[in-house]
Amino acid sequence: MEARMSIEKLTDAERAEHLPALTGWTVVDGRDAIAKSFKFSDFVGAFGFMSRVALLAEKADHHPEWSNVYNGVDIVLTTHDADGLSMRDVKLARAIDGVAA
Amino acid sequence: MEARMSIEKLTDAERAEHLPALTGWTVVDGRDAIAKSFKFSDFVGAFGFMSRVALLAEKADHHPEWSNVYNGVDIVLTTHDADGLSMRDVKLARAIDGVAA
Repeated sequence: MEARMSIEKLTDAERAEHLPALTGWTVVDGRDAIAKSFKFSDFVGAFGFMSRVALLAEKADHHPEWSNVYNGVDIVLTTHDADGLSMRDVKLARAIDGVAA
Repeated sequence: MEARMSIEKLTDAERAEHLPALTGWTVVDGRDAIAKSFKFSDFVGAFGFMSRVALLAEKADHHPEWSNVYNGVDIVLTTHDADGLSMRDVKLARAIDGVAA
């Protein structure tokens, strides 16, 4: 155990509790990460969504891996400091779904 | 030849003239597209850059394929309507370099 504050990976119990509750998010093959794809009517819709997510992410100091092609946005969440999924990802996924709703 | 206004693919002469002048842009393996990676000091730098590029792209009605991980932004340009590189890509690449400068 390290003395510094560390970001803990999700326990098995936490995974079972929180991950199935994230609608549309799937576990990425070969990575301890979750992903979801979003579609909008056009680029303005997609980038407007990204701008709102960017502000939330910066405030939470937890950032997505994401890509955009025209009206589509693909997002992957993981916690590099935890070497896998943490509660930060669960919280950011919920916040992103709130923005998209 | 179609009667509608079409976006023309770059000719060989245009490629020879314009592509080498795009500093840091490279042709993507297996696609008629160009790519460049940008690094910033942090996420705010990266997303600020993306926001400026998004406005230019929307104005030009020509949009990048791009991804962002924290302080890095990877951009691919091609013209789907031309099934390859067109002058729209050359112009957008120049504009992006202007934003990054």
